[in-house]
Amino acid sequence: MRRVAIVGAGMVRFGKREGDSLMDMLTKASLSAMDDAGIGDGPVDALYVGNMAAGMLNHQTAIASALADTLNLLPAAADAIENGPASGGSALKNGVLAVASGYYDRVLVVGGEKMSSVIGPKATDMMATMAHPQAEYIYGATLPSLAGMFARLYMQKYGITPLQLAKVAIKNHNNATRNPYAHFRTAITLADILTGPQAPSNNPVVAEPLRRYDCCPVSDGAAAVVLCPAELAKSFGQPAVTVAGFGQATDTHTLQERDDPTELRAVRIASQKAFAMAQLAPSDVHVAELHDAFTILEIAESEQAGFFEMGEGAKALDEGVTEIGGRLPINPSGGLKARGHALGATGIAQVVELVWQLRGDAGERQVKGAEVGFSLNFGGMGNNVLAFVLRREA
Amino acid sequence: MRRVAIVGAGMVRFGKREGDSLMDMLTKASLSAMDDAGIGDGPVDALYVGNMAAGMLNHQTAIASALADTLNLLPAAADAIENGPASGGSALKNGVLAVASGYYDRVLVVGGEKMSSVIGPKATDMMATMAHPQAEYIYGATLPSLAGMFARLYMQKYGITPLQLAKVAIKNHNNATRNPYAHFRTAITLADILTGPQAPSNNPVVAEPLRRYDCCPVSDGAAAVVLCPAELAKSFGQPAVTVAGFGQATDTHTLQERDDPTELRAVRIASQKAFAMAQLAPSDVHVAELHDAFTILEIAESEQAGFFEMGEGAKALDEGVTEIGGRLPINPSGGLKARGHALGATGIAQVVELVWQLRGDAGERQVKGAEVGFSLNFGGMGNNVLAFVLRREA
Repeated sequence: MRRVAIVGAGMVRFGKREGDSLMDMLTKASLSAMDDAGIGDGPVDALYVGNMAAGMLNHQTAIASALADTLNLLPAAADAIENGPASGGSALKNGVLAVASGYYDRVLVVGGEKMSSVIGPKATDMMATMAHPQAEYIYGATLPSLAGMFARLYMQKYGITPLQLAKVAIKNHNNATRNPYAHFRTAITLADILTGPQAPSNNPVVAEPLRRYDCCPVSDGAAAVVLCPAELAKSFGQPAVTVAGFGQATDTHTLQERDDPTELRAVRIASQKAFAMAQLAPSDVHVAELHDAFTILEIAESEQAGFFEMGEGAKALDEGVTEIGGRLPINPSGGLKARGHALGATGIAQVVELVWQLRGDAGERQVKGAEVGFSLNFGGMGNNVLAFVLRREA
Repeated sequence: MRRVAIVGAGMVRFGKREGDSLMDMLTKASLSAMDDAGIGDGPVDALYVGNMAAGMLNHQTAIASALADTLNLLPAAADAIENGPASGGSALKNGVLAVASGYYDRVLVVGGEKMSSVIGPKATDMMATMAHPQAEYIYGATLPSLAGMFARLYMQKYGITPLQLAKVAIKNHNNATRNPYAHFRTAITLADILTGPQAPSNNPVVAEPLRRYDCCPVSDGAAAVVLCPAELAKSFGQPAVTVAGFGQATDTHTLQERDDPTELRAVRIASQKAFAMAQLAPSDVHVAELHDAFTILEIAESEQAGFFEMGEGAKALDEGVTEIGGRLPINPSGGLKARGHALGATGIAQVVELVWQLRGDAGERQVKGAEVGFSLNFGGMGNNVLAFVLRREA
């Protein structure tokens, strides 16, 4: 198996992008990554497109072929990969395997989602298509409601407080103020969340105990990377970052089937696989991007991926360990909470942030001396998870 | 790159499967392929699911994770692949690359589509989501209408008659009478198509010059294969069939952008890549499954994949070359025309048929002495095409 390097990275700013179609965003992110790799407008051997819902949201399918044409990359191979909110991670994994196999030398992996065409209940319903049709969906168990139940149980088991959830949001919003690609670039304070006089209207309950500021926004966005075999990486203009390890694991479709619903088994297994492949441990990681679709998930994932003992994640947060400048900065990009969550784009946007961090190109939010990065892309309520360990090569 | 073998194959009968959901069909086809491989209920390392439109048609996403759970294959990796009507071929290609890379040893590839939930104009509209949104879809250029324009031009250029198109349908329906997995198991005659007194109601124009009997049906269906490295194939119960070569290529999204719209450039390139990798020529092939979504496509693909000179495909058909018993039987399964076309299932169903043919297990429709097979899975109006060369190993 060949080692694989990321030699180009790019994205568009997440948010409500009224003038852009899905194809527009995929195109811009792709061109940006190709430009960054110094390959201008190509060629590439293959494209992988991470996307969850172009058919439902944008009434368009076969988007990978369409993108190959738009980017003038014909006759490159082109496939779209769907794995719910982990579609980006899955696209990246398959791009990495394609290069690792020796079949392709230059692969573009891009993910995107145009979500602002649906808002409110329609967005929630669309997301709920990944819940179990007979055991969850028909009972109104949407993703926020499942996350609410998970949060309640996890908080009770490990003594996590609403104040600690709030700290995740405050930290990630604060990080995002330094990220020009973030959906929200507004700092928030504890007063905005819990105690301010406007709290009820500002931060209503979404699914008890989760409030608005515990939930990621519905974003438009796209992100892309260019892959090549590690031995060819030097021929591109950028410092090479290798995909040192990756892992993917599935768990039960429904939360209710799990022996212990607070255990995120797929997070655990995917992370272990990624670290084993990289021959590294969680303690070797300098910066992590975790899938904080809900604030509770950042804490739970930070424990179950192996960075902190069970029940110690919130304490680490309290102590500033996970801030930029702490021992293990988590979500310097702002995370899903504030950088935004554009489904198919997210897993790739996480990796783009890591590439920038590992190159030392992260500007005001740079984690000093970062050489090893970790990302976690989380599908459904943890039923399909991908983990990546990235390393800057000497 | 490791060589990859197919050690299990299975499918469900295509057609209108009223009692089955998409997940039911994917499950049945998967279990059938795993049973055939002698691995019972697993384990497998990864699943690839070819599907075009579960979100739009069945209001369900993240189907790969759901299938991993239903099949009790947790924590296997699981991704869905979307490439329009070539989704099955793309799923297979990515499964093959995953095994070829050395990362996975046992991979299940399954494709399926539940289409009977939409009929008539809604089905046509759903299919048209793969047309260009600005340059085709909004003008009503649906897939049948694009195929009609292609047929008109191709027939004029190469002197192909409606009678010759009819012969494709008659041959494929006749083959399907011998296939227990076919959607239509009814023989048709020239009288049914062109000259019978009921012709107008029986065989109306769909998109001039294509009539109903020139078009594949809208089918429910699923098909699956189990892959492993060729060197491990002997440990399974079945004669090993290897994926000797494969190729994928894209072409312009719209027909109108092509210098010569009768040239199917992606068919040509994908086929050449597959043959080059297999170190075989079209003349080495004993049986082929081509993507006859419209009768004209079987003729055009048989030429552009390299089996016949340009303009000679219809002549070969007239001479019986492509019948079972001819020099190069095409679509012994009945093809999309009569075995049926269940989008995400089709590219895998083609390969399942080839596996059965190469093992000598194709019953009444067996092509004698078949050792090398070829399949072609065609997305959009030829904008994303996959070709596979399969070989029975000694």
